[in-house]
Amino acid sequence: MEKSEIVTVIAPVNIAVIKYWGKRDEKLILPINDSVSVTLDTSIMCAKTSVCTRPEFTENEIWLNGVKTTFSNQRLINCLEKIKSIAVSQKSVDAAVLTWKVRVCSENNFPTAAGLASSAAGYACLVTALAKLYKIKTDLSVLARIGSGSACRSVLGGFVRWHAGVKADGSDSLATQIADYTHWPEMKALILVASDNKKHTSSSIGMMNSVNTSDLLKYRAKYSVPKRTEEISGAIINRDFAKFAELTMKDSNQFHAVCLDTYPPCVYMTDVSHKVVEIIHAYNDMCKELKVAYTFDAGPNACLYLLDKEVPKVLALIKHLFPSSNSEFVVGLQNDEIVDTAFLNSFPIQPQPKDVIKYVIHTQVGKGPEEVFSHLLNQNGSPLNIK
Amino acid sequence: MEKSEIVTVIAPVNIAVIKYWGKRDEKLILPINDSVSVTLDTSIMCAKTSVCTRPEFTENEIWLNGVKTTFSNQRLINCLEKIKSIAVSQKSVDAAVLTWKVRVCSENNFPTAAGLASSAAGYACLVTALAKLYKIKTDLSVLARIGSGSACRSVLGGFVRWHAGVKADGSDSLATQIADYTHWPEMKALILVASDNKKHTSSSIGMMNSVNTSDLLKYRAKYSVPKRTEEISGAIINRDFAKFAELTMKDSNQFHAVCLDTYPPCVYMTDVSHKVVEIIHAYNDMCKELKVAYTFDAGPNACLYLLDKEVPKVLALIKHLFPSSNSEFVVGLQNDEIVDTAFLNSFPIQPQPKDVIKYVIHTQVGKGPEEVFSHLLNQNGSPLNIK
Repeated sequence: MEKSEIVTVIAPVNIAVIKYWGKRDEKLILPINDSVSVTLDTSIMCAKTSVCTRPEFTENEIWLNGVKTTFSNQRLINCLEKIKSIAVSQKSVDAAVLTWKVRVCSENNFPTAAGLASSAAGYACLVTALAKLYKIKTDLSVLARIGSGSACRSVLGGFVRWHAGVKADGSDSLATQIADYTHWPEMKALILVASDNKKHTSSSIGMMNSVNTSDLLKYRAKYSVPKRTEEISGAIINRDFAKFAELTMKDSNQFHAVCLDTYPPCVYMTDVSHKVVEIIHAYNDMCKELKVAYTFDAGPNACLYLLDKEVPKVLALIKHLFPSSNSEFVVGLQNDEIVDTAFLNSFPIQPQPKDVIKYVIHTQVGKGPEEVFSHLLNQNGSPLNIK
Repeated sequence: MEKSEIVTVIAPVNIAVIKYWGKRDEKLILPINDSVSVTLDTSIMCAKTSVCTRPEFTENEIWLNGVKTTFSNQRLINCLEKIKSIAVSQKSVDAAVLTWKVRVCSENNFPTAAGLASSAAGYACLVTALAKLYKIKTDLSVLARIGSGSACRSVLGGFVRWHAGVKADGSDSLATQIADYTHWPEMKALILVASDNKKHTSSSIGMMNSVNTSDLLKYRAKYSVPKRTEEISGAIINRDFAKFAELTMKDSNQFHAVCLDTYPPCVYMTDVSHKVVEIIHAYNDMCKELKVAYTFDAGPNACLYLLDKEVPKVLALIKHLFPSSNSEFVVGLQNDEIVDTAFLNSFPIQPQPKDVIKYVIHTQVGKGPEEVFSHLLNQNGSPLNIK
């Protein structure tokens, strides 16, 4: 390793269609059930992380979105230690290198406040960068999982399954690809970022409470999810959108049902989220076919999955039903709208108050993490952008 | 029977603490699980129904809240036919009387629009009045159940259990009293009537969809409810408020969880409902003891159960957190507030926008249906109050 080496990686966000909720091991972050997700295009949303290690660094340092943060997060420390221990056993770098301190500089190109799975992209990015820095060969999903459960799905592109695994050491709790991003290129996503003042229970706390108190979660993990995981894998392989959509919606609803069955309940969806649900069901009813699926993570934002031919009509409907004062209401992929006034006027749901949806991200299925050469650290190992 | 006889009955509302959701027989209204409720004081909220039957009546007629309605509701017809068939077998009235047409006039003394279990009080009232009119001796809960499932619990006062039963004919699906209204006189209820523009799925349709689509409902009915029913019966008998409160809140949450697990989901709670939930958990946390329980039926209104000594403090908190332009914000039982400014200011939740709660009904455990002599029909059998 040259002293001056800086490794920079970008990594994608993923949005689950079969949800992860509940750990069987808090430290190793082992889930109680399999989950399935879609990895989203890094050109629209990504985390970017630069890492370097030098003998002259006196402490481990980290900057997140331009703000220096203490290097005390236990999950961060666990990731670094695990990677270094693999480097030791693989003798991938000189022993001396492993004594040097590390610098990490990471940014998201989307607002973290939007509650958009930023930790998944962030940890996938971090472990991919550190694995390159220390030249180790290993399953990156297992490393990412130690940082943030759902991050293990962001180390792969396309459609990804996180296998819960059964081993106590977590070595079989890893992600595999169901299909890569070229398999179903028509698949698009619209993320409806909702205005939200509410402080939601963190997903770590929420899922711990669910495991401890929800009777329904046990049933979900044991019976509902295994069946759905198989079915949705088949729907993806066969590009069966209607089946994919139905399973996605049902699983999102069941995940939020389990949150509500938790004591005290965790409530992530708002009246606006439920309005989106109602709109999508009404839209599909009018189409007499499942054309759009919704899914909600631990927050009020809807992620809609749909095929590209449906996007113009759905975007026009969203703009009609969610009037906005934002001049850049839709960001991401280029798109045209098809405004069918007769359709909009016959739609059974009336326009909502202004600005309940802040903006919409139009994106698509994408690749896994990639190395890039526009670093966030300069040649001295200092961050380029500091707030 | 004298020709001129008019029978008038008042009957109470009941609010379940272990919820009824899901039928095993749609026609006989047989539930998939037991439920438990508290019957509320008729002096605060009640349905009142007058019935009479005369040879000169040419058709069955019904007036609901001053509005003439067609006598075509199948459940209404089922109730009347069942009662008449019992009268035949018991020979309780002359055969000729059973050929006469009937008039029914019914009113609620609370807004039906508030979504406050008006059909339960209404059917309990109707069958009690008709049973008296036709002088039959039978289990009134079975008759009321044929009109509206939860109505079977309104034919008894105090704390009531509706046994799901196992027989196909429904003869063992009836209500029994766990304890009468004098058993726990400290028990009070505050019903927070929320502003609501949303059209919710009717509970009949909702529970049918849940039975057909929710995996979690099966688990709930089979495992969660039987355990909770036994536990809450014990808590009532032992006047163990903390246990009663915990089970009540958990079961309300689980019922709404199952609604959300339904496809398409039925959503009855709103952001305001969830805010009430948050407030009650925060209040109990501050008290370091469960002092108040919430429960929600198929609508956004909260019913809070609490002991009388807690009412003044909780009412002051509700007034503080839900500012109102309504000069009669709290109706029902007389009450004093205890305004503890330091407590209100230290409360972790901020006051909400004005008028999200329309008004509060302060009530208590009450008796079952009673015959009264202020009729809604005049001596000619015509309704006194028509809109």
